Amino acid sequence: MALLQTSKYLQGSGVGGVNPDLASERQTASFSVEKLTAWLDGGAERTGLRRAVVEAIERDPVFSRENQYFQSQNERYEAAVRKAVHLQKKMHEMGWTDNGPELKYIYRALAGDVAFLLHRVFMRSISMLGSDKQVAKWIPLATRYQLIGSYAQTELGHGTYLQGLETTAVFDVTTQEFILNTPKISAMKWWPGDMGRSATHTVVFAQLYIEGKCYGVHPFIVQIRSLQDHSLCPGITAGDIGPKMNFEHIDNGFLMLQNVRVPRENMLNKFCEVQPDGTYVRSGSQKINYFTMTSVRIALISDEVIAPLMKACTIAIRYSVVRRQSKLEPGEQEAKILDYQTQQEKLLPQLAAAYAFHFINDYLEELFNKGYGEIQRKNFDTLPELHAFSSGFKAMVTQYSTSAVEICLRACGGHGYSSLSGLPSLYTKILASCIYEGENTILLLQTARFLIKSFAAASTGQPVPPSVTYLAAMKPGKCPAKSKSDFLSPDIYTEAYQHMAARLISSTAAKLQDLVQSGVKKHHAWNQCAVQLAQAAKAHCHYITVKNFAETVEKLKTQAGIQKIMKHLCDLFALHGIFSNAGVFLHDGYLSGAQMDMVTTSYLDLLPVIRKDAVPLVDAFDFTDQNLNSALGSYDGQVYQRLYEWAQKSPTNKMSPAYERYLKPLLHNKLSHL
Amino acid sequence: MALLQTSKYLQGSGVGGVNPDLASERQTASFSVEKLTAWLDGGAERTGLRRAVVEAIERDPVFSRENQYFQSQNERYEAAVRKAVHLQKKMHEMGWTDNGPELKYIYRALAGDVAFLLHRVFMRSISMLGSDKQVAKWIPLATRYQLIGSYAQTELGHGTYLQGLETTAVFDVTTQEFILNTPKISAMKWWPGDMGRSATHTVVFAQLYIEGKCYGVHPFIVQIRSLQDHSLCPGITAGDIGPKMNFEHIDNGFLMLQNVRVPRENMLNKFCEVQPDGTYVRSGSQKINYFTMTSVRIALISDEVIAPLMKACTIAIRYSVVRRQSKLEPGEQEAKILDYQTQQEKLLPQLAAAYAFHFINDYLEELFNKGYGEIQRKNFDTLPELHAFSSGFKAMVTQYSTSAVEICLRACGGHGYSSLSGLPSLYTKILASCIYEGENTILLLQTARFLIKSFAAASTGQPVPPSVTYLAAMKPGKCPAKSKSDFLSPDIYTEAYQHMAARLISSTAAKLQDLVQSGVKKHHAWNQCAVQLAQAAKAHCHYITVKNFAETVEKLKTQAGIQKIMKHLCDLFALHGIFSNAGVFLHDGYLSGAQMDMVTTSYLDLLPVIRKDAVPLVDAFDFTDQNLNSALGSYDGQVYQRLYEWAQKSPTNKMSPAYERYLKPLLHNKLSHL
Repeated sequence: MALLQTSKYLQGSGVGGVNPDLASERQTASFSVEKLTAWLDGGAERTGLRRAVVEAIERDPVFSRENQYFQSQNERYEAAVRKAVHLQKKMHEMGWTDNGPELKYIYRALAGDVAFLLHRVFMRSISMLGSDKQVAKWIPLATRYQLIGSYAQTELGHGTYLQGLETTAVFDVTTQEFILNTPKISAMKWWPGDMGRSATHTVVFAQLYIEGKCYGVHPFIVQIRSLQDHSLCPGITAGDIGPKMNFEHIDNGFLMLQNVRVPRENMLNKFCEVQPDGTYVRSGSQKINYFTMTSVRIALISDEVIAPLMKACTIAIRYSVVRRQSKLEPGEQEAKILDYQTQQEKLLPQLAAAYAFHFINDYLEELFNKGYGEIQRKNFDTLPELHAFSSGFKAMVTQYSTSAVEICLRACGGHGYSSLSGLPSLYTKILASCIYEGENTILLLQTARFLIKSFAAASTGQPVPPSVTYLAAMKPGKCPAKSKSDFLSPDIYTEAYQHMAARLISSTAAKLQDLVQSGVKKHHAWNQCAVQLAQAAKAHCHYITVKNFAETVEKLKTQAGIQKIMKHLCDLFALHGIFSNAGVFLHDGYLSGAQMDMVTTSYLDLLPVIRKDAVPLVDAFDFTDQNLNSALGSYDGQVYQRLYEWAQKSPTNKMSPAYERYLKPLLHNKLSHL
Repeated sequence: MALLQTSKYLQGSGVGGVNPDLASERQTASFSVEKLTAWLDGGAERTGLRRAVVEAIERDPVFSRENQYFQSQNERYEAAVRKAVHLQKKMHEMGWTDNGPELKYIYRALAGDVAFLLHRVFMRSISMLGSDKQVAKWIPLATRYQLIGSYAQTELGHGTYLQGLETTAVFDVTTQEFILNTPKISAMKWWPGDMGRSATHTVVFAQLYIEGKCYGVHPFIVQIRSLQDHSLCPGITAGDIGPKMNFEHIDNGFLMLQNVRVPRENMLNKFCEVQPDGTYVRSGSQKINYFTMTSVRIALISDEVIAPLMKACTIAIRYSVVRRQSKLEPGEQEAKILDYQTQQEKLLPQLAAAYAFHFINDYLEELFNKGYGEIQRKNFDTLPELHAFSSGFKAMVTQYSTSAVEICLRACGGHGYSSLSGLPSLYTKILASCIYEGENTILLLQTARFLIKSFAAASTGQPVPPSVTYLAAMKPGKCPAKSKSDFLSPDIYTEAYQHMAARLISSTAAKLQDLVQSGVKKHHAWNQCAVQLAQAAKAHCHYITVKNFAETVEKLKTQAGIQKIMKHLCDLFALHGIFSNAGVFLHDGYLSGAQMDMVTTSYLDLLPVIRKDAVPLVDAFDFTDQNLNSALGSYDGQVYQRLYEWAQKSPTNKMSPAYERYLKPLLHNKLSHL
């Protein structure tokens, strides 16, 4: 048996070339990885642009994420500020602009640890809610970073329910100012990013009072820190809210206001204005405010949810062909863990979901762009559907992806639990997406409200948006599948999802109606159906996702190799959903137990088929090693070398005072060797 | 409207007394909290003992967990060492011993951040695997902390599959020594606790070679650091493996061995010995090794899994009656979030699970103690059942509880995501329990192996252990329930679980047999059924947990108030399980769709009933505020004050160099006010 070869395995990563177990996975791909990447990007040209941006960012040492897993909250904040400041310079140097095609790739390449994202929301809210004069005053200052903005909406005691905000802004007609106050502790602004330590200004949402009368929540620009020395302005108490599960690089803050006066001109007044004599004037539609939320929800899905899911799949799948454990056959070498059915069943459905969500995101963006065009023509008809869609899909995709990343982490065993795998930080960050920009349960209930309304309209023959016309055609029936291969037909499974979603929506609508007819008040009846309403909304989104995946595959006729593997993934995504939610398909006999057995067989049979292409399928996501920042997930598969190399850099390997202080006195004996 | 009253809300926690929204919840309890606590503890006397231990620990400032959420990995390690060293002194002072009744309460009161737990495993392994001579030499040294031990089993490339370990120990007959080596990087010991920075000694598991022949894995005591100055011994490379998702207080380590020689006497030789001439002698049964694993798995469930779940429920439920959001009725005050059906449906099933798991843990401990008695009488008959039970329940309880803690965290919205809520650290710690002491999927497959064997035996009339006799009586049938209230009968739902578990086991056994009969090799057939085998094992454990809960309630006749609420919780746990896994109950028509609707109605109807007692039900867990260490979960419900008070102590509120370095140059303008 060989002795230790320190020199060899201390050389670390990069030296050994690609791990042969991983290399062999790439030799048998049933399709061209490069073509798949280009197709996912929307064309080879965009792939080229993306790679150029990534290269420029990753070459710049200021943007390095090395040692990130060793940093304290303070260190991460400082690095994020440093990067944000440097980014302005970089963009200027590179000729990248805020409206250019590079922008979406820049933030993806930076992979999250950058400050001043709320500064961008500050600017967006002024652009959307401010008058031309306000835009002309503030946007140039903000663009040149002569101030740093934030967005102060959420309060310690108030989140999603905006009408409940307690901060007050009283108009003082004598001085032509608003007087802002935090009347009690639950009214303190809490959570706004960039506000704890960085921002000089913020948009404060407060209840507007004129002559004792409340006019509801309005936005006010408030300076909170000096531009000279960054000290807090008079009447301002502000600071950082402390450690969180992740987002240590962001200075989420608190803010109290004590008789803080701002001039009348600081209320954003594109739609609502307080005139000098105190007259309140509202003009235009407030509905456009929802549209901001809609746009943010759709925008975050790609970078904050789908990209992390793709990364987690990349890490876990590459590791699962390098890691070997136990034997599939006595006497053989230990098997790659991806060859176990249980490991395939953990990871491959998550991989299929990553593709499914990439496609549904394309669909949502298209819907959004169409709707935006209409809105610019002052047609607001698509707003309800867009709002319902952005809410429901945000909830479904974030929930599904969060649980998928957790599955990937756990599928890597102990090493997945090491921060160096990159998986803990992906998980703790993606988890927040279930909460921010609208808590998921509340969002699902908003989608449900739209579905219940649509169902009522469809039932009485009124027109409904295209995505819900299926509710009109709702009929009892049975699935016509006769063999397990029938369940590889997209028509068969899409129909099953449609039936199931329609049934859940109609049965919940019926329950709701029964309750109201039996005398229960409308609000209470809604509450008593809330669990089922949320379930129905999820079912609807799941159905649309499956349908959209199947349609995407259908359109791929020109690229046979890619179409074939995408078809497998689509089948897997759909059948995994039926297998995992069997109850709702069996409930009314649409599927029989025997058919469910066919589903199970087809589903499990797909696993080894897709497993063959698993590595090429994650390679196609085209993440660089720097972007993954994972000891387990790098392209070369040198897992153990990298874990060892990175661990040695940990600050925990510097001398600790614990020995001198506690261990030495404990071990105070004359023994030198036992 | 009131102006800011800084003085009032800066006074912080404790001052305002109990939040009235929380106080009102305690006035309507349907049972005595004190009696429930005593019953859970196993008697009022034990409650008294527990509280005395908790008080002694919490009064001692060395054990304080204040500011824990602000500590770096290094600081947490140091605090854990300081506490471990101080604990020895404390135990001596208090007259507490390692075998005393206080021990289980000490570690629970310390709530985790204490070092040298692996030192205890070091001692346990010597006690169980060492000869009398070895025990006499090492145990006194370890007891007096004249050395610090660890337990080096897992390697970088090898976890659960122990036969695959690569570290070697070659017997050198000329010097009467073993020569230990780490032949390649995947053989490096990786993860052992207390080893990265603290331990002076460790038990190394290595492949024993004598005259070129391998005798399998054996344990060797190896010194790794000097007792004089703590420097690494010759041939030893060791250090800390760096940051993890949690357990920052533990110095999980790595270890490489280069020609490290230990005397022949250092192989633990109670069961196997290498004689001076190199003759290998094995005596006694190796099976007892499994029993150590079994005992550890059962031991960890209570403190590492159920207690954290109970804490998460306490935090989330108390917060949910203090937090108000949106309105249930127009014009009313905003509602407590626990009054929403969706919030009840998130939290109350987790509360029911906490009770269910507390009872199944009692059952497991009893089974274990009986089995241990038999083993001491050299009767090993119960080992297979105990091994199967400890494996399956460890997997089920850790998996379920991990997901339950995540639900609690998310149910607290943004504030749940703050570290100060205590929930992120509970989650990131409990997650590890799904991986350590046997990865859950592998454990479930071990349980499945036992079930498949038992099913085969039962089918042919052979005797089987009592827990699986139900497999012999397996028959097709339909649930006799006719109304929703029938589903509040434990007989009805326990029968449904039993039927479902038996069906999953028998159908998987049939699939396995079909595959083998069709010519698939046994190992491959097993792999092709693995997903369903794991599902069947979970179903069995779920059934036993429901059955045990129902039997526990049945025995409670003398305490009517407690019995009534426990019956509700048992119903909720059982019906939640049917509602959430509807497919497996509907599959063969044992439950019809109409019956599933009854289940759903009964299930949802239970939520508002249990909601009334939700706060008393978590109060009964009797955690002190110090133990919860949560700004959201304290007994007085002063949530917002405490969040604000704690946030101010965060190191992120100290001056940061980021302003001088990056922000000041950015804001370099002459503007002083805008």
